[in-house]
Amino acid sequence: MTQPQLTLVQIDNYGPWTATPEPRPECDIQALQAELFADLVQFVGRQSGYLFPVRFDNMVGLTNGLDRDDHARIQASIATRYPVTVSMGVAAARTPTGALSRATANLQAAGSAQDDTRRSVLRGETLGENDRRETDVQIAHFDAVDATARYTDELDAFEAHRRITRGYVTLADHLYEHYDALAFFVGGDNVIAISPGLGRDEYRAFVDHVEDAVSLPLQIGVGRGATARQAGMAAKRALEACREDETRVETTAATRHGP
Amino acid sequence: MTQPQLTLVQIDNYGPWTATPEPRPECDIQALQAELFADLVQFVGRQSGYLFPVRFDNMVGLTNGLDRDDHARIQASIATRYPVTVSMGVAAARTPTGALSRATANLQAAGSAQDDTRRSVLRGETLGENDRRETDVQIAHFDAVDATARYTDELDAFEAHRRITRGYVTLADHLYEHYDALAFFVGGDNVIAISPGLGRDEYRAFVDHVEDAVSLPLQIGVGRGATARQAGMAAKRALEACREDETRVETTAATRHGP
Amino acid sequence: MTQPQLTLVQIDNYGPWTATPEPRPECDIQALQAELFADLVQFVGRQSGYLFPVRFDNMVGLTNGLDRDDHARIQASIATRYPVTVSMGVAAARTPTGALSRATANLQAAGSAQDDTRRSVLRGETLGENDRRETDVQIAHFDAVDATARYTDELDAFEAHRRITRGYVTLADHLYEHYDALAFFVGGDNVIAISPGLGRDEYRAFVDHVEDAVSLPLQIGVGRGATARQAGMAAKRALEACREDETRVETTAATRHGP
Amino acid sequence: MTQPQLTLVQIDNYGPWTATPEPRPECDIQALQAELFADLVQFVGRQSGYLFPVRFDNMVGLTNGLDRDDHARIQASIATRYPVTVSMGVAAARTPTGALSRATANLQAAGSAQDDTRRSVLRGETLGENDRRETDVQIAHFDAVDATARYTDELDAFEAHRRITRGYVTLADHLYEHYDALAFFVGGDNVIAISPGLGRDEYRAFVDHVEDAVSLPLQIGVGRGATARQAGMAAKRALEACREDETRVETTAATRHGP
Repeated sequence: MTQPQLTLVQIDNYGPWTATPEPRPECDIQALQAELFADLVQFVGRQSGYLFPVRFDNMVGLTNGLDRDDHARIQASIATRYPVTVSMGVAAARTPTGALSRATANLQAAGSAQDDTRRSVLRGETLGENDRRETDVQIAHFDAVDATARYTDELDAFEAHRRITRGYVTLADHLYEHYDALAFFVGGDNVIAISPGLGRDEYRAFVDHVEDAVSLPLQIGVGRGATARQAGMAAKRALEACREDETRVETTAATRHGP
Repeated sequence: MTQPQLTLVQIDNYGPWTATPEPRPECDIQALQAELFADLVQFVGRQSGYLFPVRFDNMVGLTNGLDRDDHARIQASIATRYPVTVSMGVAAARTPTGALSRATANLQAAGSAQDDTRRSVLRGETLGENDRRETDVQIAHFDAVDATARYTDELDAFEAHRRITRGYVTLADHLYEHYDALAFFVGGDNVIAISPGLGRDEYRAFVDHVEDAVSLPLQIGVGRGATARQAGMAAKRALEACREDETRVETTAATRHGP
Repeated sequence: MTQPQLTLVQIDNYGPWTATPEPRPECDIQALQAELFADLVQFVGRQSGYLFPVRFDNMVGLTNGLDRDDHARIQASIATRYPVTVSMGVAAARTPTGALSRATANLQAAGSAQDDTRRSVLRGETLGENDRRETDVQIAHFDAVDATARYTDELDAFEAHRRITRGYVTLADHLYEHYDALAFFVGGDNVIAISPGLGRDEYRAFVDHVEDAVSLPLQIGVGRGATARQAGMAAKRALEACREDETRVETTAATRHGP
Repeated sequence: MTQPQLTLVQIDNYGPWTATPEPRPECDIQALQAELFADLVQFVGRQSGYLFPVRFDNMVGLTNGLDRDDHARIQASIATRYPVTVSMGVAAARTPTGALSRATANLQAAGSAQDDTRRSVLRGETLGENDRRETDVQIAHFDAVDATARYTDELDAFEAHRRITRGYVTLADHLYEHYDALAFFVGGDNVIAISPGLGRDEYRAFVDHVEDAVSLPLQIGVGRGATARQAGMAAKRALEACREDETRVETTAATRHGP
């Protein structure tokens, strides 16, 4: 059984800000979003968490190992160094969908994303140290078999982008609707999913489904650990094993002494 | 008639790099990608261009106003400050799809994205100063009507993300297949499209199509200018007019003395 | 008695790198140095440490609370995201000068700063958890009385810079030679010193000395704590008390539950 | 005859901001300053200018080639992406000291650095295109002979820092008082001076003076050009010639087609 702790990070009152007092140049908005994400992903990563960009103004973190003080310190640093603030909702549950649903509800209860009085709010509960276990997190790391040869070197850049996006949507919908898992596009042809402890057979069935639906052959590395980093590094090593052995699904536990 | 100049930016040999000598921590990869994009978007933006993150290792720039030296200087700065290099293909054409298709072909001709000897390559031709015109670029800036109230404040964060993504895919596919336009998701519920000079009626038909297909009510601001920045700022102002007047499509030319 | 733990951070083989294969543009070098420092200061800061820019290619950290793994993780992240690596020497001692001297010796023993085979080396010992105490760190935070009115708004910018630099040099030399303390310029008219547990009278005598020598009236806040952050925040609050009460030296202990 | 254009960049009302509503953590302040400088140096560098960190809240740019619109666009981008704004004073003159003195006066006339209503002010005049010449800028790039062997690998890190700082102060004072030149420390053992067209003999006399005064043997590359980048790259190449030929002063003109 897994116990992922998820954090929804939302830029406060961001839509109005981008157009006040008049629309801001797009390059500055894009740069701000990317810099803010780069900062947040490192804050979270330093304590072994993952963060996904999602909609850029709404990001999702897998934060097992970060307590409330850790969250609050991140918020304070952002408030000092950026013209915007971020609010956060956090929750843990047995499934990723359950955790994110509660984390969202916690944040929504504190006010609208466009409420101009909601600033740097932090709502919800993190896991106590005594409630954490070595197997709380499962990560599945996907990529497309031979994506460079099939897409990047072969199709025009937008067509390649469309194929990858279509594959991601199919994959993410299926994982969400049938397995309570949350899948995020992380660049190139890579997708990382927070999973509720699925087994090798389920991933095999899943690979077959996506290949049938959108002709996208996937390979998957699956890892388990106490934190996103432990589970994620195990998943990456498993994915390397897929590439070397030309298999489609590999699973490993976290190395005991991994970082 | 438009004449967009598009630049495909590709991180050289990036896939292998992320796993050499062993898989690198995801937080560092995410941070690197975001920092690189933030840097590039500002380089391009400084000279009135736009850049879209697309697949993060493949980015697309709308670069009317940047010549070959500008591109080369950006590459040199990245090569100095990052552990990776970027190669670029560039081309101008009457339609966005035509330009990107040629830009891609130019880059592919220089070697595979995973060719470890292809580094900081620049291929293709930029527009000469004498060939440029005040109306070379058309930008359409979309967002969803009442997205915060309908999605962000109402649904759980992943469900909201799925709706926005589904809307984006429908919109981008339709623009690509029927209008030779390229649409990019830029955060929140915002999509920016490089268009080949479509008229108000075409955008109205388009809005109806998307609303019928995925129940996503859109509003669109359309702008025209000599550069991405000029056209894009005009589009943003037009979109503000939609919000104020509760209309669905507004178009404006660039202000003559805009930045 | 204090027990500061100091880390000397050195960019590996940096001089040759800046001129290979030919001299790199100064703006890229400056940007790289500043981005690397911004990154490192946040890594160290996240775990309650301080970092000083010093010579930019040689930085000094006050790192009580960071163990070897923390140092190693920082090095790995830098190695992934930058074209350069950093080596580190670390040591704790009763005095700041003693600690930095050993930290330097530890690093020098691993090879020259221009040895092109020395990469991401980490040498020396961090404090064990059982050896740490609530009073290990003393920070003194200095600024010049009325610096904005006297210098910034009154003199030309270079003359103001000269006065501040001359004041810093006098102050740093005196602290180093007579008190085994290390003082670093941190911007504006601010200097932060790592001190070996000096008392109020010693700081008073010190203020008089600097004012006599270079006509620079100082005010000083002094704080104590288990980490740079605790001691530094206490020092900042003490300095605020100086400004409000128009006193020249104030000292406070760390608040017990401070961040 | 030279004609340097200098820009004084000042963070608006920065001192109060760092302590409002209460003192901000030093790591966040240091990170903000470094990120802001990294950003500004690239903005300025993109258009062939140089920027020096100086006091971090007061920076000095050598901005031949940037007009008022360029300055204003930089200010607008900073105002969008940071919690602080920057004001600027700009002026050109025959000597560096003359230009900075006027640039400072221009900015001071707009209000105090701690005036909380002065935000993103831009004062002064940039050079018209017709007034610019190929030889407007002279740069001298200094470093210490064998600094790594003599200081970095030999002394403890603070002692090395003290020697370098003392050398810098001596050098900068002498250049300022006798030659109307402005010298800035740029990292390691490197100093860059904006000079008013000094000749080889003057630099030789200068090198002798510094070596006599503080036993610091210098080597100097001198370059000339229309912009900081042109003059600075020529100076760097001249300095490389010093290193190869073991000479102490080398001068070159800008390469005609340099970047």
